[in-house]
Amino acid sequence: MTGPRYTPLVAGLPATVPFVGPETQERARGRPFAARLGANENTFGPSPKAIEAMASAARDVWMYGDPENHDLKAALAAHHGVAPANIIVGEGIDGLLGYLVRMLVGHGDTVVTSDGAYPTFNFHVSGFGGTLVKVPYNGNHEDTGALIEAATRSGAKLIYLANPDNPMGSWHGARVIRRMIDAVPDRTLLILDEAYIELAPEDISPAIEPDDPRVVRMRTFSKGYGMAGARVGYAIGAPALITAFNKIRNHFGMCRISQVGALAALSDQAWLAEIRARVEMARTELRRIATANGLTPLASATNFVTMDCGRDGDFARSVLAELISRDIFVRMPFVAPHDRCIRVSCSGAEDLARFAAALPEALGAARG
Amino acid sequence: MTGPRYTPLVAGLPATVPFVGPETQERARGRPFAARLGANENTFGPSPKAIEAMASAARDVWMYGDPENHDLKAALAAHHGVAPANIIVGEGIDGLLGYLVRMLVGHGDTVVTSDGAYPTFNFHVSGFGGTLVKVPYNGNHEDTGALIEAATRSGAKLIYLANPDNPMGSWHGARVIRRMIDAVPDRTLLILDEAYIELAPEDISPAIEPDDPRVVRMRTFSKGYGMAGARVGYAIGAPALITAFNKIRNHFGMCRISQVGALAALSDQAWLAEIRARVEMARTELRRIATANGLTPLASATNFVTMDCGRDGDFARSVLAELISRDIFVRMPFVAPHDRCIRVSCSGAEDLARFAAALPEALGAARG
Repeated sequence: MTGPRYTPLVAGLPATVPFVGPETQERARGRPFAARLGANENTFGPSPKAIEAMASAARDVWMYGDPENHDLKAALAAHHGVAPANIIVGEGIDGLLGYLVRMLVGHGDTVVTSDGAYPTFNFHVSGFGGTLVKVPYNGNHEDTGALIEAATRSGAKLIYLANPDNPMGSWHGARVIRRMIDAVPDRTLLILDEAYIELAPEDISPAIEPDDPRVVRMRTFSKGYGMAGARVGYAIGAPALITAFNKIRNHFGMCRISQVGALAALSDQAWLAEIRARVEMARTELRRIATANGLTPLASATNFVTMDCGRDGDFARSVLAELISRDIFVRMPFVAPHDRCIRVSCSGAEDLARFAAALPEALGAARG
Repeated sequence: MTGPRYTPLVAGLPATVPFVGPETQERARGRPFAARLGANENTFGPSPKAIEAMASAARDVWMYGDPENHDLKAALAAHHGVAPANIIVGEGIDGLLGYLVRMLVGHGDTVVTSDGAYPTFNFHVSGFGGTLVKVPYNGNHEDTGALIEAATRSGAKLIYLANPDNPMGSWHGARVIRRMIDAVPDRTLLILDEAYIELAPEDISPAIEPDDPRVVRMRTFSKGYGMAGARVGYAIGAPALITAFNKIRNHFGMCRISQVGALAALSDQAWLAEIRARVEMARTELRRIATANGLTPLASATNFVTMDCGRDGDFARSVLAELISRDIFVRMPFVAPHDRCIRVSCSGAEDLARFAAALPEALGAARG
């Protein structure tokens, strides 16, 4: 034997790369996409004030970012009416989920999620040796009651719930989530992933009770604020939990330009309102396009519309492949029965017109 | 008991924050520093081309960065004469060290480093349950022979060596490093942290033999390239090791603006040459200032000069405190006997003049 000695856990993990970005597909295809509608990026972009702040911060990038993220945390705390001690900033929700799983999950520990929910969370759980218990959706909705029941039965350390949901776009009202939080088993932690919350109806998020040890909320600047490439996420939770991140996190992990950009983006709530309006228009147009082509658009509280192609997973995969071959980057749910759908991100009129032009051809080719 | 169930490992980690940034100190002091010379940031800044590229990338930040870091890896591979399969890009060397330790180190695994070397590496080793074996420096140099010996004796999975060294600024020639690599015990991995290599004499880094499974090199855009706040590091190593990072890394962890900036910085080697010249001038001036004040400047292959204050750790800590109270941000080695020194980063004439003005007062106060 030669080479380094990996831990048994890491040696046993799959070497396949689970995350294929659009650039990888473009390189494989040999040409760029004409419309980038697969990763739920906010094509309307960040606030012009955030762009300006980041452009001007470029010359200061010789300095490390503040490892405390003090200014951003203070602004977020004021925005949410909580204390800075309730907030941890990290390298996107993906980064924070990795830290959180590391903090709680070791070999044999159980974690409950929905079958077909966020794969990056599952990647982290497997990566730390946890055992995933997957609960079926109830139709197009995550099943809050079944998640609680599975956590109780399995003694899970963590429950993952996204509200609104990705990949289905569905959501629960604040009362359902409130009821779920109240039912979280003793010493289990509910991860409430609210990545899309800024684009959802305003009554779906229960009031933040920041010192509640049963729930941690995950938020991001990637979706509503249009800064996916900046990697700025944050969690809101009880101070003891927030402090524990400091035991393990990459303290100097945040890009300084991103810190500055997020602060400027947060201060421009008028731009966020404008984004909400544009996303709503795009959802309406995506629903119209779906319906005009015989697909069933699902209701969405996010910046994407999931479209039921009306047949099985193989058919939807064909539709997806045909769209991609027509230079439209879209994605679809991985798991049956959701894999009867494709998932299309909101965007401006030009992108949606390209999608509208490609869809009938793609459906024809998939049917033929 | 209430609250989440941390792993026994994480529950046992210290809750103290090990990394205090200058901003934290500024907030505590109630006023900013006049010269930022403590974190070995490159105050000369990145290439103007990199600044321009980052400023212009700000408007594209709605897109996630390429999770493969394809373009940057390709450019780095060409630059170093290796294959892209030999390179992994990550969130600074800090981030890559965290991933690497996670890949190899579990409870009870042994890791060898020098007593007084990079504390962030030790943070990661402890954070994954490893046992640190610390070898004394040989004078102001890391002791390559003793590191190998300790690794052999303890069956270490990892050895950490920085060349040039931080915090002492010392270095070994390529032949010494080559000999050390050849002596790495079977199935031990040497981490050769070359964070400062772009600022060192050209003959201190042995030729990269990229498929050698005994060594992985860590490089960064934080020092010579002046982009500490961008968080771009990379490792060069054997393809099997590089591929293993994909099992666990935060695939979408890189800031898109930083990717673009690093690519532009790498392409401007003329700027790097200019930085090398300015750093050399600053080292000369820092040596002059030290000597004029009765301190002994250590030889440096980095962008800092470590100055022996000629007495014990308490005295150097007093000097440091007096400098900080005079608005000069500097740091010092943590561990005896190195804590007889202070460590001052290279910078432009104005910063160094501020340091030169403050140092005699600080020494007087510390002596008084």
